[in-house]
Amino acid sequence: MEIKVVKNVLAANENIAQANRELFEKNRVLVLNMISSPGAGKTLIIEKTLEAFAGDVRMGVIEGDITTTLDAERLKKYDVPIVQINTETFGGDCHLDANMIANAVKDVDLTRLDALFIENVGNLVCPAEFNVGEDCKIAVASIPEGVDKPLKYPLVFIESKLAIINKIDLESVLEFDTEKLKNNILKVNPKIEIMSISAKTGAGFDGWLKWLKLHLKK
Amino acid sequence: MEIKVVKNVLAANENIAQANRELFEKNRVLVLNMISSPGAGKTLIIEKTLEAFAGDVRMGVIEGDITTTLDAERLKKYDVPIVQINTETFGGDCHLDANMIANAVKDVDLTRLDALFIENVGNLVCPAEFNVGEDCKIAVASIPEGVDKPLKYPLVFIESKLAIINKIDLESVLEFDTEKLKNNILKVNPKIEIMSISAKTGAGFDGWLKWLKLHLKK
Repeated sequence: MEIKVVKNVLAANENIAQANRELFEKNRVLVLNMISSPGAGKTLIIEKTLEAFAGDVRMGVIEGDITTTLDAERLKKYDVPIVQINTETFGGDCHLDANMIANAVKDVDLTRLDALFIENVGNLVCPAEFNVGEDCKIAVASIPEGVDKPLKYPLVFIESKLAIINKIDLESVLEFDTEKLKNNILKVNPKIEIMSISAKTGAGFDGWLKWLKLHLKK
Repeated sequence: MEIKVVKNVLAANENIAQANRELFEKNRVLVLNMISSPGAGKTLIIEKTLEAFAGDVRMGVIEGDITTTLDAERLKKYDVPIVQINTETFGGDCHLDANMIANAVKDVDLTRLDALFIENVGNLVCPAEFNVGEDCKIAVASIPEGVDKPLKYPLVFIESKLAIINKIDLESVLEFDTEKLKNNILKVNPKIEIMSISAKTGAGFDGWLKWLKLHLKK
């Protein structure tokens, strides 16, 4: 019975995700669904990307939070379309779903965008279960979280096309074994692409910008 | 309709939580439900506590993970009762609920325990919604997650009696404003107790051990 409810929820979500996907495809917009633990650095990665691509790639952002508009406010200065979703109006949901995205994109002129970031609620678990019509999910893993997280929270790494290892500026102070983290990511998804960056210092960021440009549709 | 389902789930959970609470009370066991983002340091705090209290306070641990027994294995050497719950057998649940705890404690001799740690699934959102019969929830916030998390994920801080700020050894390297984090925690819950520690270096750990001893029931 309970499983049936969950299946219905996921099936209904998938139908709306498919409609979103067609809308994004029609407008040739690359849609990236960013998923991580709270504080792994999704917002800073988006900030630095908007900064780097200003006047070059036309970007938009959908910000997902349970409450507050703190992240959206951080992005305001970049003069790109930003839509804030607060899931507290949906019962405090711990993830974004396709219907929330369908409503949010009504406020965005997709014909004028090359790429759209969706910053999901900070949570390694549930956001990975819901497709929202994105081209791909991107898992952000940050060094202070430790090497074992891909093994303990495998789904987001299984569902993602790219894993970004962020905060590599803390590698030496934490004596962190980044190779071990990479191996653990590859254990749960041997096909995933992996890159190491520091959104703070800019290390490795060129590789990320190159990846993003390569995947643009127009 | 959907809200009704959720309400039923929470009401059913509360009934079982109440039975757990009575069982723990009868045995005079202090039960602490530890909640945080993935990688905030719950397991290390528990490890160091078991180490400090060996032969003094009789502790037990229930480990909650979606999959793997990695955390339980880290604790094996301390020769205390450990029960691992893998929520993948419950559909990959992102939190522990009262029924999981009711089943897990069947394998623990509560008459021989002074305190029981419940290490919840690493997730700042959903675990805060489910009482499991604990005496109190403890929110662990780690410095690398940033100062804004209590504002963005308020429920766990509202529901907790104590907030532990962990990884203060990274305060200077991250030029972190710990006072601002404290203020943000107090904004969402003015009654919460707060302590700053580093489970890694041991800084502030005495205060935590003292707090725990003070709350023991026998």
